[in-house]
Amino acid sequence: MSRVPALKSLSGIRRVSGMSRSKGPLVDVHTHVYLPRYAAELRARTVAPRILNWVNSAGQTEERLLILDGEPSAGRPVGPQYWDRDEKLQFMRKHEINISFVSSANPWLDFLPAARAHSLAKELNNDLEEYCSTSPEAEGFAGLKSLYGFGLLPLVPEIDIPSILQTIDQIKSLDHIRGVIMGTRGLGKGLDDEALEPVWEALQNANLVIFLHPHYGVDSKAFGDKPNGHVLPLALGFPFETTISITRLILAGVLDRYPSLRVMLAHSGGALPQLSSRLASCIDHDPIVAKRLKHDARFYLGQLYYDAVAYGPEELDFVSEIIARSSRYGATGGVYEKQIGTKRLLFGTDHPFFPPLKASQKWQSVEDNLGAIRAARWNGLGDTAQANVMGNNALRLFNLSE
Amino acid sequence: MSRVPALKSLSGIRRVSGMSRSKGPLVDVHTHVYLPRYAAELRARTVAPRILNWVNSAGQTEERLLILDGEPSAGRPVGPQYWDRDEKLQFMRKHEINISFVSSANPWLDFLPAARAHSLAKELNNDLEEYCSTSPEAEGFAGLKSLYGFGLLPLVPEIDIPSILQTIDQIKSLDHIRGVIMGTRGLGKGLDDEALEPVWEALQNANLVIFLHPHYGVDSKAFGDKPNGHVLPLALGFPFETTISITRLILAGVLDRYPSLRVMLAHSGGALPQLSSRLASCIDHDPIVAKRLKHDARFYLGQLYYDAVAYGPEELDFVSEIIARSSRYGATGGVYEKQIGTKRLLFGTDHPFFPPLKASQKWQSVEDNLGAIRAARWNGLGDTAQANVMGNNALRLFNLSE
Repeated sequence: MSRVPALKSLSGIRRVSGMSRSKGPLVDVHTHVYLPRYAAELRARTVAPRILNWVNSAGQTEERLLILDGEPSAGRPVGPQYWDRDEKLQFMRKHEINISFVSSANPWLDFLPAARAHSLAKELNNDLEEYCSTSPEAEGFAGLKSLYGFGLLPLVPEIDIPSILQTIDQIKSLDHIRGVIMGTRGLGKGLDDEALEPVWEALQNANLVIFLHPHYGVDSKAFGDKPNGHVLPLALGFPFETTISITRLILAGVLDRYPSLRVMLAHSGGALPQLSSRLASCIDHDPIVAKRLKHDARFYLGQLYYDAVAYGPEELDFVSEIIARSSRYGATGGVYEKQIGTKRLLFGTDHPFFPPLKASQKWQSVEDNLGAIRAARWNGLGDTAQANVMGNNALRLFNLSE
Repeated sequence: MSRVPALKSLSGIRRVSGMSRSKGPLVDVHTHVYLPRYAAELRARTVAPRILNWVNSAGQTEERLLILDGEPSAGRPVGPQYWDRDEKLQFMRKHEINISFVSSANPWLDFLPAARAHSLAKELNNDLEEYCSTSPEAEGFAGLKSLYGFGLLPLVPEIDIPSILQTIDQIKSLDHIRGVIMGTRGLGKGLDDEALEPVWEALQNANLVIFLHPHYGVDSKAFGDKPNGHVLPLALGFPFETTISITRLILAGVLDRYPSLRVMLAHSGGALPQLSSRLASCIDHDPIVAKRLKHDARFYLGQLYYDAVAYGPEELDFVSEIIARSSRYGATGGVYEKQIGTKRLLFGTDHPFFPPLKASQKWQSVEDNLGAIRAARWNGLGDTAQANVMGNNALRLFNLSE
């Protein structure tokens, strides 16, 4: 595939005058794709995850995506918005998004045998590099592309660690891939598996952002048998899964050993912020765990990044507050720094999921998340905080600005 | 058993001058007991839940409580603090708690066949009435006892609804029992079971508070196999269970049909506040659910009560904010009322769980929750808000003051 000149250090980004957004770019860090090669893989399958042909109520055949067995309504309709780059760019223009950091959607490579996961990861990373590197320049931001991406690692049972490290090396060499998206299963035993130690080390050294994203939720028996559609697994199961996974990572001491690891949590960290003082208290009462950790649990929440996909301003204010208070729990007993709370939250859309119910100019899910950023009080930090969350934080996190 | 005169309408409560707490009582709404009759039931069992004799590392035999199969360290040591009323009163004096609303601890009657659950509920409710009615007067609050309670309903599979309604009638007749504590399983199919409709109606009519409390957590496979003690099931599993249960109750329309039902959520509502805008968005995208509900999901959070057992001031501020914003989502599009946010949060300790690691004057878990109430900003409402959360809200909720 064609390669573009290295962009990793971009000191010469300049803003084009006359653009409509006066305070900075709008950057989407949570936006998904099923690359054509991946969609083909799903079409060839006969069990979930799969893409299948389905006759809808109008008698027409459409493609549907069944991500998990037993989903209501045989999954959801899928079309070009899931794989066609033009659709992504059109969605971005409609919502005035300047730059998107695109990631493969769940379940990634989880269902594949190790050898196939390794080879497909490599192919999909190359596909995504091409998808990004050949994208138009970001409107208003000379020197920047519209599209960057998160790569995939072959994190599946029975993979050998050198294959994962080799894939990290590959991603490092791809100039438009700035991180990896990761589910919660690791090699089958979760992210607190000691076997992953070299992976954390390599990701830290490569300065790649880990986008931690749910797929499995929690055991669906907990949701009962009432006709609630996707509401319970999506609204609760997904964020619970992320919360459990990052908590296990913290409890395993991974953030103590790799303090420069850059982990971004999907859906604003799920329930972690609201349960973090309870977590700290439970750890205090379990000496075997408390002794293992360097800090109060609340400290680690200030080391993490959070997408701003929480749909409400109060939720965003709260996450920002939880990040800010983390400085109190450092080894040296730092002071509260309200401005750091807004530097680790990043706008996202979750496109192409949550499409509008009616054909409309803009997507409600996107408007809700944008509106939440605009309505949040940000501890009185005003426009600067808003611009940070809208896009400046992303440019810094992904090394696209100073 | 001895009965005391009716106390349900207490217009003559007067504060005794000279007491140390100047702003109002300290009232604990989340404090548990295993009544002696219940402890005997657990001692007779050979599978969890059970109380067993265990030889500790010093070679001494002690009693341990195994609540769930597969708990680490054969459960936890138990002693008189779990069943002896004098220990409860001593704990209250140590922490200057004036009044406690005592509830049986999990797993309540869940493990019993229907007939035994029914008879034991009745016996335990009478025991608890005696436990409360014969307690000393609340220091500084003439006309009030130190102890009130939450009764038990025989909510188990195969129970007939009249037995439950009969138990509600019994509780109504017990002057010191002001509510019921309830797990999340209902009759085995969760609280969104249509069969429970007459139960909600009877509880609403009886003006009894439902204290919704977790026991099962979520499937423990999600927590992996690392030596994390009780941290993950307690810190995450418990609040997740409460969150799922109250969400299912909301989705089933129970709060629409019984808008005066008074539900108090354990552990400050678990993850519900932080996930409530996401929940609203997911409902918006699932028309079959959206059509069923009268309001935006966020409205219902303002109908609920929350204990203040969250261990951190930022968490309490957030819950208060989430309650306050609910007025925006009413049918008539109400305005934001910041003072209502602090009127539905109630101090609690979770005693006798989370005992101090070292013999000390006060319990860290209690100090953390009290400190959180003192440090919270309460939207600038100051001392009044603090006094409300410390105790005045509880007196109002349980009809002990105007």
